[in-house]
Amino acid sequence: MKRKRFRAQIVGATGYGGLGMTEQLIRHPEIEITALLARNDVGKPISDFFPHLRGFCDRVVEEAHEDRVGQDADVVIFSTPDRVSMQYAPRLLEAGVAVLDYSGDFRFRDAAAYERYAKRQPSVSGKPHGCPELLATSAYGVPELFRDEVRGARLVGNPGCFSVAMELGLAPALKAGLIDARSIVVDGKTGISGAGKKPTPTFHFPERVENVTPYRVAAHQHGVEAAEHLGRYAGRGVGLTFVPHLVPISRGIECTCYAQLASATGAEAVRELYLEAYRGEPFVRVLPHGVAPGPKAVHGSNLCDISPFVDDENGRLIVVSSIDNLLKGQAGMALQNVNLMLGLEETLGLDRIPLYP
Amino acid sequence: MKRKRFRAQIVGATGYGGLGMTEQLIRHPEIEITALLARNDVGKPISDFFPHLRGFCDRVVEEAHEDRVGQDADVVIFSTPDRVSMQYAPRLLEAGVAVLDYSGDFRFRDAAAYERYAKRQPSVSGKPHGCPELLATSAYGVPELFRDEVRGARLVGNPGCFSVAMELGLAPALKAGLIDARSIVVDGKTGISGAGKKPTPTFHFPERVENVTPYRVAAHQHGVEAAEHLGRYAGRGVGLTFVPHLVPISRGIECTCYAQLASATGAEAVRELYLEAYRGEPFVRVLPHGVAPGPKAVHGSNLCDISPFVDDENGRLIVVSSIDNLLKGQAGMALQNVNLMLGLEETLGLDRIPLYP
Amino acid sequence: MKRKRFRAQIVGATGYGGLGMTEQLIRHPEIEITALLARNDVGKPISDFFPHLRGFCDRVVEEAHEDRVGQDADVVIFSTPDRVSMQYAPRLLEAGVAVLDYSGDFRFRDAAAYERYAKRQPSVSGKPHGCPELLATSAYGVPELFRDEVRGARLVGNPGCFSVAMELGLAPALKAGLIDARSIVVDGKTGISGAGKKPTPTFHFPERVENVTPYRVAAHQHGVEAAEHLGRYAGRGVGLTFVPHLVPISRGIECTCYAQLASATGAEAVRELYLEAYRGEPFVRVLPHGVAPGPKAVHGSNLCDISPFVDDENGRLIVVSSIDNLLKGQAGMALQNVNLMLGLEETLGLDRIPLYP
Amino acid sequence: MKRKRFRAQIVGATGYGGLGMTEQLIRHPEIEITALLARNDVGKPISDFFPHLRGFCDRVVEEAHEDRVGQDADVVIFSTPDRVSMQYAPRLLEAGVAVLDYSGDFRFRDAAAYERYAKRQPSVSGKPHGCPELLATSAYGVPELFRDEVRGARLVGNPGCFSVAMELGLAPALKAGLIDARSIVVDGKTGISGAGKKPTPTFHFPERVENVTPYRVAAHQHGVEAAEHLGRYAGRGVGLTFVPHLVPISRGIECTCYAQLASATGAEAVRELYLEAYRGEPFVRVLPHGVAPGPKAVHGSNLCDISPFVDDENGRLIVVSSIDNLLKGQAGMALQNVNLMLGLEETLGLDRIPLYP
Repeated sequence: MKRKRFRAQIVGATGYGGLGMTEQLIRHPEIEITALLARNDVGKPISDFFPHLRGFCDRVVEEAHEDRVGQDADVVIFSTPDRVSMQYAPRLLEAGVAVLDYSGDFRFRDAAAYERYAKRQPSVSGKPHGCPELLATSAYGVPELFRDEVRGARLVGNPGCFSVAMELGLAPALKAGLIDARSIVVDGKTGISGAGKKPTPTFHFPERVENVTPYRVAAHQHGVEAAEHLGRYAGRGVGLTFVPHLVPISRGIECTCYAQLASATGAEAVRELYLEAYRGEPFVRVLPHGVAPGPKAVHGSNLCDISPFVDDENGRLIVVSSIDNLLKGQAGMALQNVNLMLGLEETLGLDRIPLYP
Repeated sequence: MKRKRFRAQIVGATGYGGLGMTEQLIRHPEIEITALLARNDVGKPISDFFPHLRGFCDRVVEEAHEDRVGQDADVVIFSTPDRVSMQYAPRLLEAGVAVLDYSGDFRFRDAAAYERYAKRQPSVSGKPHGCPELLATSAYGVPELFRDEVRGARLVGNPGCFSVAMELGLAPALKAGLIDARSIVVDGKTGISGAGKKPTPTFHFPERVENVTPYRVAAHQHGVEAAEHLGRYAGRGVGLTFVPHLVPISRGIECTCYAQLASATGAEAVRELYLEAYRGEPFVRVLPHGVAPGPKAVHGSNLCDISPFVDDENGRLIVVSSIDNLLKGQAGMALQNVNLMLGLEETLGLDRIPLYP
Repeated sequence: MKRKRFRAQIVGATGYGGLGMTEQLIRHPEIEITALLARNDVGKPISDFFPHLRGFCDRVVEEAHEDRVGQDADVVIFSTPDRVSMQYAPRLLEAGVAVLDYSGDFRFRDAAAYERYAKRQPSVSGKPHGCPELLATSAYGVPELFRDEVRGARLVGNPGCFSVAMELGLAPALKAGLIDARSIVVDGKTGISGAGKKPTPTFHFPERVENVTPYRVAAHQHGVEAAEHLGRYAGRGVGLTFVPHLVPISRGIECTCYAQLASATGAEAVRELYLEAYRGEPFVRVLPHGVAPGPKAVHGSNLCDISPFVDDENGRLIVVSSIDNLLKGQAGMALQNVNLMLGLEETLGLDRIPLYP
Repeated sequence: MKRKRFRAQIVGATGYGGLGMTEQLIRHPEIEITALLARNDVGKPISDFFPHLRGFCDRVVEEAHEDRVGQDADVVIFSTPDRVSMQYAPRLLEAGVAVLDYSGDFRFRDAAAYERYAKRQPSVSGKPHGCPELLATSAYGVPELFRDEVRGARLVGNPGCFSVAMELGLAPALKAGLIDARSIVVDGKTGISGAGKKPTPTFHFPERVENVTPYRVAAHQHGVEAAEHLGRYAGRGVGLTFVPHLVPISRGIECTCYAQLASATGAEAVRELYLEAYRGEPFVRVLPHGVAPGPKAVHGSNLCDISPFVDDENGRLIVVSSIDNLLKGQAGMALQNVNLMLGLEETLGLDRIPLYP
C-alpha cells in the first residue's frame, strides 16, 4: 500500500466521536492514524472497546500524556469534552500541528460569543475561555457556509450536531431574506448516541423504549451556536427557540424548522431557492416534493437531506433537515474539515452510501 | 357478578381502536359488550385477532349488518373510518340508541367547520357531510374543555388523537390570552399504532427502525380540528401550523407547542395558570418544573401529562403534552365520553396506572 | 374506602422490582403499603423516581434502617440483591412478620442446593448462606408447581425470572416422563429491564438497538435453579443447558425449550397433556396450534403463555413459554405468593389484561 | 473513471435483496450495473423506491421482460422468489451468461435434495424442479465450505440467510467429529428485513415492538438446507432441529447452536479448532473468549462472527454465530460468489467496516 501523506492523532478515541474518526481514517487514502489516545482504559486494543473493529483496527489505546499529544502528528483531532482542547491548542499550534476540536472550545470567533455559549453548556457553566486570543484565528467547521474560512485553517471548531442540521436547514432562507429572522422555532429529535457512550439513567435502554422526551428546553447550547453562525452567515441578527427531544433511535437527527415568511412565497419557489443554494454541494441533498426526509435515508453517511415546505395558510416556512448525528453531525463533518485544513479533496474518505434498511 | 346496567356494541372491533374499547369494557362495572362487529374477518373469536385477549374475551366477531348495528344496545361505539357512522347515526338516534364515533364525522358542530376538515382528511377528500342536520346536536368529546356539552349527549364525536394533545396543551394559555393565537406552531410525534392495524410500506418494521419522518406537513386534518375547537373554547380565532412526525414507538403522542407570548410572563406564573386550569381534572397532570414529559409516563393510561416552559429570550411559550394515542387519544377518551353520555361517573373503568418501564 | 386487612413494606422500592409491587399494591383490595424503603436516594416521593406514579402514589421513600424494616407490617417484600434479606429474615420471622424475597436467598430448601446456585450467581460468588437453618422452612414461590408449599408459608423465595419460564414450560413433560431429563436445552431471550434499573455500558440504549447477545453462556444461575426445582417436582434428576440472550425489548422473556422425546409422541397428544396439566390454572394459557407465543401477548400481565411443538423427524419436543419478566417473572409472581401466604385469594390484584399493541 | 470489466443485471431490484447488490455494485471496481429489473413499479428511478440512493444511483427500473433479462450482461443476479430464476437459467447459461440466484432454485445439487427443501418452503409447496438437469452443474454459494465449487461456476445458488449462520457455526465441529451429528439444535433470531420489503400484519411495526415470536417451528426450509450441506461438507448424515424467531431489529441474524460433544473437550481446545478452521478466511472472525457475539458487531458488513463455548457439566458444545442477514446472509455473500464466478478477487467491493453503534 502506498504511504499516506498525513499523520493524525485522535484524542478521546474510546468514545463514539473518536470511533467515527477511527473508522473513517482506517480507509482514508491520505491520512493515517499515528495514535489513539484516551484518559482512561488505556493499554488495550481499540477493538476491545468496539468489537466490530476487530481485524480492521487493533491499535492499542495510549494514555493522552501531555507530551504524547501532538507527537508524530500533522493534525490532532480532539473528540473530547469542552475545555480539554483549549489546554493543548496553543502549544500544538506553535509546534506547527493543526487542531480540529469536536467541542465548543473553538466554535466561536470572539470571546463574547463564546461566553453566550458557555452559559448554556452545562459542563462549562459560564467559565471564561482559556486562550481567547486563539479564537480570532479559529474557523467554524461548516464548509457549506464557511468553506473559505476552513480551507487551510490550522484550528477548526467542529460544529455541534444539532447546529449542523439547523444551520443547513435555515441558511438559504435567511440569506435570501425569505423569513423573519426573529420568528424561528426549531424542534429537534435526536438519537441517543448523541449523548455519547457513557451510560446514565436517562439513556438506559428500558427508559428510552416507547418514549420521547424534550430536554434543555429553550436552553440547549446548540441553539445559541446556530443563532450566532446563522446571523454571521446571513448578515442579520437571528433569534430562535430550540427544543431538542430524545427519540428511541441510536443514530440520527431530524430538525423541523419553522419561521414566518417575510412575504408570501410558494413552495416551488422556495424549493428552487434551496436547490440553487446547495447546487454542487457534495453532501447536501435537497429532496424533491413528496419525499419524506428522515435520518434513515442518511444513516451511516455524511449527507444532509433537506426538504422545504410552505404553510400558505399561516404564512410559514417549514424546513426539515436530516443527518446522521455521528457523521455529518460529528466525525464526518470533522473529516470534511480536516481534508480542507490539509489541502486535500474535501470529499476524500467520505463516500459511504447510507445503510438501508 | 352483578348485572351491568348498560349495553354497548363496538363497530370496527378488529382494529386497534375497537380493541382499546373492548379491553376497557371487559372490566367496566356498568357497561357490557353485547356485540363486536366488523366488516371483514367475521365469524372468529376476537382473541384470534388479538391473542392477548384469550381467556379475557373470546366473543365471536359478527358482521356489521345494517339491522344488527344498534340491536340490543344502549350505545354504539364506532371505531370506523370517516363516513361510516354518518350512515348509521340518524337511524340509531331515532331508535334511542346513543352514538359515539371515533372518526371525524361528528367532531364539528356545523357544516362549514366539517368542510374545512373534510378537505384535509385524505379519506374524505372534501365530500359533503351525509347528515349535516345532526351536527348541531353533536358534542365534541373533550370533556376537559366541553364537559357540559358531552354530559348527557346522544351523539358524540371523539376527538383526533393529535387534537387531544394540542388542545389540552394550548387551551389554558389561549383562554387566558397569554399567547398570540395566530403564532402557534405544533410539532407532533406519534407512535405507529396511530395509523391503525393495517400494514403498509410506510409502517413496515424495517422502514421505521432508526427513522423519524414528517408527514402531511402543515396539511394534517387534526390541525384544522384543533384550531376550530381551541378557537371555540377560547373565544378567539386560532391559526396554527401543525407538523406530525412518525417516531419508532408503538403507542404514544408527544406534542411540543410553541407560541409568541402576548406579554412577558415568567415560567412560574405560567405553571400556576396551568395548575389552576386543570385543578380537579382526573386525567390531566401538570408536571412540576424539571420533570421531562414523555409518553412513557402515561403509557397504557388515560392520562395527559402537560409541562409548560418559557423561552424568556425570545418571548415564547412552549408547552409539551404527552398522551397514549390509543387511550387518551382514542379509546380512553371515548369511554370517558360514553360514561358522561350515560350519566355514569366520568372515571369509571379508567383507573389504569401507566405501565413502566 | 374500606380499611385493608394487611400491611406490607417494600424494601428496595426504587428499583424496577419494587416498582412492580408498588403498582400492584396501590390497587390491591386487602394489602396496603406501609413503607417504601431503600438504601439510597431516600427522603423523596417515589414519584420522583417513577414519574408515571405521580398522583397514584407519592409516598416518601424511607431509609431501610434495621429497626424500620418490619415495623408496622404483616409482610416484608424484599426486592433487593442477593444476601440482603438473609440479614433480616431471622429477626422478622421471629417477630411474626412474613418474608417474601425476590433474590436467591430463599429459593432452595437445603444448603447444598443453595451452594450450587451460589457458585453461579456472580454477586454471591460462592459465599455460604447466612442462615441455612431457615432454608428448610422456606417455600419456593412457583404456585403452579408447589402451591401447597407456598400456601400459608411465612418465608418464600420468589423464583428467578428465567426459571419461571423454563419451569412452567418443562414441568408437565418432565412429570409425565415424556422427555429425556438429561437432554434439555433452553434458549432464553430477555428484555433489558431484567437487568434492573442501574445503567451500565451493556444496557446503554445505543448498544442494544439492532443487537442480540448471549451472556453467562451455560453458566447462568437460573439454569441451576430450574434444574433443581424441576427435578424436585418431577422426581427425576434434570440436566439442562441454558443460554440467555439480550434482545432489544424492555419487558418480556421468551424461552424456547428443546428436549429429546423418550418415545415418539404426536403434537396433539403433547398439547393435550399440557392443557390437562394447566387446566384451572389462572395464570397459564396453553395456546392452540398455530398461535405464535410471544411476550407481547402477556405484556403487563401475570400470565404465562405456553405452546408445545414436536419435531417428528428428530424426535424432539419444543416448548415455547412467554412471560412478562417484571410480573410473572417477578412482582406479579411475588404478589401471587403473598396472597397465598396471607390466606387471600391467589388472584387478588392480578387481573390486568395484557397491554397491546 | 476506468471502464469496468464486467456487466451485471439485477432482477428483483426493488426489494431489499436487490438493493443490497445495487449498493455494492455502485462502488465495485470491476462490475457495473447494466440493468435494474423488476416485475412491478417499473419506469421510475430506483431512488424513488430507496430514497437513500438519491445521487448515488438514479437508474430507472425496467420491466423484467424475457428478452431483456440477460441482454448486455455477463452475469444476471436474481433476487427473486423461488421458481423464478429456474425459468430463465437454461436460456441464459446457453447464451453464455452466468447466473447467481438468491432463492432456493439452485441450492441443491440433485433433485432429491431439492425435493426435501421444496416440501418445507411454503412458496414452493413441493412442486418439482423446472430444470433438474441443471442442478448437477450448480454450485452452492458458501465459499468458506465449497470454494472450489464456486470458483468459476456459471450457476450458483446463493444460500439461505439462516443457513449461512448455521453452517459456518457448525461446520468445523462436524468436520472434526467433535459432536454427535444427530444431536443438533439451532435456535435462530432474525431481524425483520429477512422477510423482505413487503408489508404484512406480522411485520407491522406495532406488532413487533416489545415482541419475540418463533415461526415455522422445526419446519423452516433453511434447516433442511443446512442439514444437507453440512452433511455433504462433513461427510456424515446430519439431523438438526431448527427454530427461527423474529426479534425487533431490522438487520441481523444470531444463531445459537447446541450439540452433544462426542467426547469431553475443553473450551480452549474447541476455540483453537475453530481458529484453525477459519484461519485466513477474510469474512469469518472467531472471537476471543469473553466477547459476546452479536449482529451489531457485523452490522452493514459481510462478516460472520463466531464464538464457541462448552457446557462441561452437560457435555455440550454451544456455538453462537452472527451475521448481517442482508449482506453475509444475502447480497454480500452473493457478491463474494459473483467475484469468484468471474475470476475476480473474492473480497472485491466487500470491505465495509461494520457500522456502530
